[in-house]
Amino acid sequence: MELRDIGERRAITIMAERYGSINLDDCATIDAGDEFFLVTTDMVNKTTHFPDGSTPYQMGWFIVAVNLSDIAAKGGLPVGVTLSLGLPGDENVDFIRELSRGADDCAKKFGTKIIGGDTKEMDSITICGTAIGRVKKGDFMPRKGTRPGDIICVTGELGGTGAALNSLEEDKDDKAIGKILIVHPRVEEGMAAASTHGVTASMDISDGLASSLYQLMDINGMGFSIRAEKIPVAVEAKSRENGFDSSLYSGGDYELLFTISPDKFKAVKEAVGCKVTEIGTVIKEEKVILIEGGKEKEMENRGYEHFLSRGKTI
Amino acid sequence: MELRDIGERRAITIMAERYGSINLDDCATIDAGDEFFLVTTDMVNKTTHFPDGSTPYQMGWFIVAVNLSDIAAKGGLPVGVTLSLGLPGDENVDFIRELSRGADDCAKKFGTKIIGGDTKEMDSITICGTAIGRVKKGDFMPRKGTRPGDIICVTGELGGTGAALNSLEEDKDDKAIGKILIVHPRVEEGMAAASTHGVTASMDISDGLASSLYQLMDINGMGFSIRAEKIPVAVEAKSRENGFDSSLYSGGDYELLFTISPDKFKAVKEAVGCKVTEIGTVIKEEKVILIEGGKEKEMENRGYEHFLSRGKTI
Repeated sequence: MELRDIGERRAITIMAERYGSINLDDCATIDAGDEFFLVTTDMVNKTTHFPDGSTPYQMGWFIVAVNLSDIAAKGGLPVGVTLSLGLPGDENVDFIRELSRGADDCAKKFGTKIIGGDTKEMDSITICGTAIGRVKKGDFMPRKGTRPGDIICVTGELGGTGAALNSLEEDKDDKAIGKILIVHPRVEEGMAAASTHGVTASMDISDGLASSLYQLMDINGMGFSIRAEKIPVAVEAKSRENGFDSSLYSGGDYELLFTISPDKFKAVKEAVGCKVTEIGTVIKEEKVILIEGGKEKEMENRGYEHFLSRGKTI
Repeated sequence: MELRDIGERRAITIMAERYGSINLDDCATIDAGDEFFLVTTDMVNKTTHFPDGSTPYQMGWFIVAVNLSDIAAKGGLPVGVTLSLGLPGDENVDFIRELSRGADDCAKKFGTKIIGGDTKEMDSITICGTAIGRVKKGDFMPRKGTRPGDIICVTGELGGTGAALNSLEEDKDDKAIGKILIVHPRVEEGMAAASTHGVTASMDISDGLASSLYQLMDINGMGFSIRAEKIPVAVEAKSRENGFDSSLYSGGDYELLFTISPDKFKAVKEAVGCKVTEIGTVIKEEKVILIEGGKEKEMENRGYEHFLSRGKTI
């Protein structure tokens, strides 16, 4: 059996079973007194992650941003990022200057720095980032913790990156590439939400809303009832025919998804500062229900998944 | 100008200058009260690191081992390793089972565990490991700290991996692949040495003894006088014509290189437990001198360096 028959998430489960020590959260945790050190890693490759025309600056920014997004989802303060670069030897030296500048700008923008790395010769451009964060144990926001009746909400808007990907399929569009790669992880928002102690579960929406909801359902053994008209569809997506679909099934938005006790929703919303939209509630049944025009149906379980989604970026 | 014109170490310097915050040590350090958290990352690729015939078990072991070797060189206790895998979708599922088994066995053997990771689709097999360690600030063994008159010594024996690489060039040899990839990082030895507070500088010999000495010279602004007859040439290398050369210029042995105050040498040697050989002394001049048959000459500054050494493994 090949990896393309089972997909990325099943592959991860197979490995996690061997290790026994993986929590299947956005970050691994290391005990450090009254804190956790958070560790997360993400590897990207030119072929599968970067649209044609991506600049090295954008690539450097992106790899740092997506790692910081995982730290943000746990309420962590980022304290350092390492970068491993695999590059063909015929790459121009300016490539590493620009890539470092993008990585450095992103790290600084979100209050941290690049602390180390590794450079190797490889046949195609490959970048692996690892971000380290720290969080008080009492503030840590896990993936597992939803309770029936909790409000489910998202930061910002969804589908904007999906719309940019669609527009790229039609036409080379440098603005769309910027939208896809210059990701703004919700670092301050994550820390603010964590400090309220009102969030029962949290993750970042890297592979799309539907995919994130199904992952949370698997971990928590309970589902969600989502109101279609509440979903904050990004303005770029609204203007496209499949814009609503993008807001459910496209990856790359890197917003945060929280479940919150109803009595704490106002406090979390105020603390977070950015747009936070209530989109539904946690239910006992193991289903993700989408209520659209008064009718209930099950949301499709699809989004970006490596080994299964070849040909699409992100 | 291309990367192959400047080499891996110059590329790293260019990036480190941008970041400003990189210490060019084996590990990055994060302040954590009376301890440092250590972070190190290493990325390997089938084309440039794994000889034909390498098994997934060996690859999994190797990526964990080389990362732990960097933690060992700083005197750190490993507390977790993350692995990012880039794999072609047509890879068999057994590949990830075996790779995880190798990684898990190595992590457990050296007192730690795999705590997380990432899996992505890529055109060729790529593995990025990140190891996290912790060490009391007073025990940390930096690269910078040599003093003229310090004894320079190495653990174990050198050239064994170089000899195995040579034997592979002549013939496919599964035992040689095992010697190259089933690396035993000096984790306990590193912690024991650190606890003596007698080590003034330390690094692991991943790219060969000569390369390590030149790197230490650049960082410390002082050189070394090495006695050729003292170098502990591995038995596998001794039986080959170029065995002594392998002990100087071949990478992949992952032994530790220490400089030690003369009055502490005995204490360090006893604490470390394994074979520790005095091979020379730190000198004021910025030179690496090799004394062979009573004659002095400068040691060549060569070893494995990515972008410059294409075609060789490790």
